[in-house]
Amino acid sequence: MTLVNETYINKELIKKAKKDDVKLVFDRFEEQQPQCNFGLSGVCCKNCFQGPCRIMPGKSEKGICGANVDTIVARNLLRTAAAGATCHTDHAKKAVFALLKIAEGKTKAYEIKDEAKLRRFAKALGKKSTGPIKAVAKEVALEALEDFRRQQGIFHKTEGCYLNWLKVRATKERIETWKKLGILPVNSDSETSHALRQTTMGNDADPINILRSTLKMGLVDGYGGLNLATDIQDIIFGTPYLTKSESNLGVLKEDYVNIIVHGHVPPLSEKVVEWAKKLNNEAKKIGAKGINVVGMCCTGNELLMRRGIPFAGHVLQQELAIVTGLVDATVVDLQCIYPSLQDITSCYHTKLITTIDFVKIPGALHIKFDIEHADEAAKQIIDVALKAYPKRKKSKIYVPKEKTTVYAGFSVEAIIAALSKLNKKEPLKPLVDNIANGNILGVVGIVGCRNPKLRGLKFHENLTKILLKNNILVVGTGCWAHAAAQEGLMTPEATEKYAGPKLKAVLQAIGKANGLPALPPALHMGSCVDNGRIGTLLGAIADYMKVPIHKLPVAGSAPEYVTEKAVAIGTYFLTLGVAVHLNPVPPVTGSELVTKVLTEDLEKITGSKVLLGATPQAAADVIIAHIKKKRRELGLKV
Amino acid sequence: MTLVNETYINKELIKKAKKDDVKLVFDRFEEQQPQCNFGLSGVCCKNCFQGPCRIMPGKSEKGICGANVDTIVARNLLRTAAAGATCHTDHAKKAVFALLKIAEGKTKAYEIKDEAKLRRFAKALGKKSTGPIKAVAKEVALEALEDFRRQQGIFHKTEGCYLNWLKVRATKERIETWKKLGILPVNSDSETSHALRQTTMGNDADPINILRSTLKMGLVDGYGGLNLATDIQDIIFGTPYLTKSESNLGVLKEDYVNIIVHGHVPPLSEKVVEWAKKLNNEAKKIGAKGINVVGMCCTGNELLMRRGIPFAGHVLQQELAIVTGLVDATVVDLQCIYPSLQDITSCYHTKLITTIDFVKIPGALHIKFDIEHADEAAKQIIDVALKAYPKRKKSKIYVPKEKTTVYAGFSVEAIIAALSKLNKKEPLKPLVDNIANGNILGVVGIVGCRNPKLRGLKFHENLTKILLKNNILVVGTGCWAHAAAQEGLMTPEATEKYAGPKLKAVLQAIGKANGLPALPPALHMGSCVDNGRIGTLLGAIADYMKVPIHKLPVAGSAPEYVTEKAVAIGTYFLTLGVAVHLNPVPPVTGSELVTKVLTEDLEKITGSKVLLGATPQAAADVIIAHIKKKRRELGLKV
Repeated sequence: MTLVNETYINKELIKKAKKDDVKLVFDRFEEQQPQCNFGLSGVCCKNCFQGPCRIMPGKSEKGICGANVDTIVARNLLRTAAAGATCHTDHAKKAVFALLKIAEGKTKAYEIKDEAKLRRFAKALGKKSTGPIKAVAKEVALEALEDFRRQQGIFHKTEGCYLNWLKVRATKERIETWKKLGILPVNSDSETSHALRQTTMGNDADPINILRSTLKMGLVDGYGGLNLATDIQDIIFGTPYLTKSESNLGVLKEDYVNIIVHGHVPPLSEKVVEWAKKLNNEAKKIGAKGINVVGMCCTGNELLMRRGIPFAGHVLQQELAIVTGLVDATVVDLQCIYPSLQDITSCYHTKLITTIDFVKIPGALHIKFDIEHADEAAKQIIDVALKAYPKRKKSKIYVPKEKTTVYAGFSVEAIIAALSKLNKKEPLKPLVDNIANGNILGVVGIVGCRNPKLRGLKFHENLTKILLKNNILVVGTGCWAHAAAQEGLMTPEATEKYAGPKLKAVLQAIGKANGLPALPPALHMGSCVDNGRIGTLLGAIADYMKVPIHKLPVAGSAPEYVTEKAVAIGTYFLTLGVAVHLNPVPPVTGSELVTKVLTEDLEKITGSKVLLGATPQAAADVIIAHIKKKRRELGLKV
Repeated sequence: MTLVNETYINKELIKKAKKDDVKLVFDRFEEQQPQCNFGLSGVCCKNCFQGPCRIMPGKSEKGICGANVDTIVARNLLRTAAAGATCHTDHAKKAVFALLKIAEGKTKAYEIKDEAKLRRFAKALGKKSTGPIKAVAKEVALEALEDFRRQQGIFHKTEGCYLNWLKVRATKERIETWKKLGILPVNSDSETSHALRQTTMGNDADPINILRSTLKMGLVDGYGGLNLATDIQDIIFGTPYLTKSESNLGVLKEDYVNIIVHGHVPPLSEKVVEWAKKLNNEAKKIGAKGINVVGMCCTGNELLMRRGIPFAGHVLQQELAIVTGLVDATVVDLQCIYPSLQDITSCYHTKLITTIDFVKIPGALHIKFDIEHADEAAKQIIDVALKAYPKRKKSKIYVPKEKTTVYAGFSVEAIIAALSKLNKKEPLKPLVDNIANGNILGVVGIVGCRNPKLRGLKFHENLTKILLKNNILVVGTGCWAHAAAQEGLMTPEATEKYAGPKLKAVLQAIGKANGLPALPPALHMGSCVDNGRIGTLLGAIADYMKVPIHKLPVAGSAPEYVTEKAVAIGTYFLTLGVAVHLNPVPPVTGSELVTKVLTEDLEKITGSKVLLGATPQAAADVIIAHIKKKRRELGLKV
């Protein structure tokens, strides 16, 4: 039974799905109720076959091996964070492989678009930054690759034996803090593997030790994953700058061949966009006006950020897009690909195409994608879409109307570029001065997924609005960006409408210097892998203000998190010293100790902690209180 | 409420535990009843925070993301196998580090005991096998280390880009089979990490693809873990040969300082044994007769195999040992260490000492162990035990009587050495001839843990006895070895008592050639990491018979498996082509597809499959039927 009183999602399509007898994520969510409370509180353990065990106070207070609830909860959390981190380290590693192959001439399909950034990194890594670009690229790629090959104490001195990308991306103060904590990661693959063995039955029973490793997963995710992926992708595909486009399912066009590119990585989608242009006339031959490629999920964010391609929807809309009957091909790369897509596309004419060897769906067409044969794969995909177009069923078509304007492309470089119009020498000064004087009360990064548990709350949208009203600048990534854009929060008009008066004045000043009425109040910083951009921005502000990150009046929020990746990202922000609001409540409530460490004690260790708040207002309240506390501690006006 | 009608375990100690108000694993097992059926059938998914989800036919047939039961069951299995494999790859990697450090002179605490084996491996790896031993050791260590550093398609040609240790240890026929399946692992750490991302929400939804990766975990475990660990340990600590000792808790001595070394790796326990001898007089000074070091679990197996040290008990006896009140220190390294040990030791005078940084227990004394400072740590441990000895409480002492003789040390080299007394030129000939003529109906490897779910069945013991009676030679490792030894199955007398007449004659002939009345009918091949020895033996037999392993009349059984490691080991045997009996029924029954693949279809792929049988007789029946089928297919007498 689909709830059609959705307040944040394409209602007509939800009704149509019901009419078309298509089950959606919301239906499956209903069917899964009630959900297991042992799982929800983290007290279920399946790490050996004496079990499964579940802790029930007064009945079964220990697992069969003797593990107590603190150990079990901490172990589950570590495995989750590790699993999340592996998604980003893979994303990063594949980008590094691509860079190396470009450098070695093993692929002609890609080139290096941001040469300056490449040379900056070569220099930061202590490598030769001048000379032929491919030689520099090779050096950078090999240094990055070492983060997957390094062995503790072997070939390297123990001192300084940690990720190269952490060395070049983290602040000195943080590196010292992490060194003292003993959580500097040596090798992304070996660290994530280690999390598995640490949590197996009969290994670690010390919840604090396990939580320490969980923090380490945050660093693996942040530097072996997020930052590395973003930096190498910027080098290859170009660093994003201010761009204008459109969002929501209304970007699908009735009279075009519609191709959705969905997932998280740019190599394939970049090529699909390129070949859609080249083959546009083929669409005209079959009676369409052309080929319309739109992005879904974070592949959508990637294409929007760098190419201004319209982004059609977030994770909860991947199914609804198909229900329009307008999508001729949905091409997926990896992460957040609902297996349901095959069931749903099979109700329409839509072809579902998988492309990655470890992301397959039975029944879908698999077109193997690799960067050596990227052009061939992209052409083949366009061809599949062209062949599907004539098979559209008119009776099954609904043309969605929802569409909003979006300004995006706010990489750190783009933000600095915008600020430098106000102060060329010290671009951060206008931002920092306005934070100091209270015009900007603080900065909050909102990230992550869209959770069907929170239907109707419009958590992303409402939290963002409340923060803006309180003169807090909001930056963010991932599915938040879709939600915010669809709500109209990523335009200069939104500044007028939603920003508190002080924030508004600042954003208008920056905007005007850049030829806009105002800077949007919600800054789209990229896909979920681009959360490193937020970390970099905070690091730059901290360095400029000469205070450590954890003293800044900033916070993070993942108010509708879904994925294991989100847990890893949240942990990255915690290691940075940024308090992170998490909702739904993470599966740690079964352990008082773990809950206390995350929500209280951590503050003494990393300067950060987990904030809880189950409604947008409650979340905003704790976040604002936290920011005010930080301001007071810095001696700033509240 | 402790069940005292245990048939296989030290009954008096169970009674004493009750009297002492000590909770044992059996009590916690009772408290955990009933166990969750969703977990038991593998249909619960916690891989994202839309969930937890559980599949209920007719109610909730898909997870919220749309994953069906096949995907969920397969994903859970892959994570389990990967977690298990990481335990062994760590074990192996640390051994390789040790070898490298010995080679480089960075530790003086160890030396290379089996130089011939080292040189054999150098040769097999294509390295210089002559010249100074340390130079050879370094080459071998670096080649092994490459199995944790190799990157697909980078620095290596794609062809042949897989684990060095697999190249030197697997048969050509198997390598071809695995190549066709696309499961040759490139790098142990990256492969186990990959299992995590493959199974996260929105990545792989193809159960067959996921099961293929599960098979790959078997190869990671087998060659990146088991074989590598055993081979390097043999090189450093010596290859085991026939030895005689004692088993069961009766090896604890009332008038000695008793130290239990417990866990899975030799470096620490070897040193404890060495320093116990050196410091024996210190014990006399405090009124004891000396220091008595005994082994528990697989650390016990390692010490028994190489040094003839008595082995006190299997995983379910680790608690009972302390209940004797005789143990002055329990020193643990890693894996299968019940967190309950701290609760239990705190009821007695026993000091619990943890030694590994990712295996800690709150409340235990932690003495950091690393191979550079091995002597210091071992001395400190002995000192703790000496200080604890005078604190024994007489009123809490119970001296266990259970003690049996055991013959152990059956490495492949030891078995070949024994056989070569019958045929020096072709040592395998007597074995193979007797298999061919039916005197030995087949060979079964029994491995793995002791599961409290199967109390009272004496599964290990009874299955072994039934197989022996049917003229099947039994070899095995791990906790099976403890159970079999305690049951008196590892002596020449057992051959007389339990072996079928044909098998008996063969074992008597081999025994007599080696100065024994008979070879024991149950051959102790080592700790659970030594399952590679069984694989090597099977490979040697297969090569000698010129048939692939999967055609041999052999099988494996993990009749009481507990750990994730056991799943990885079982998968290794499946990749070898060896049918494996698994009990309890693995958590896959929720998926007809996964169950069918494992119990039927796999036979067409690897030549192996999972056998089920919930009692020793039922297990023996399916195993014997399988062996007879294999014999018929080879044209051998049944």
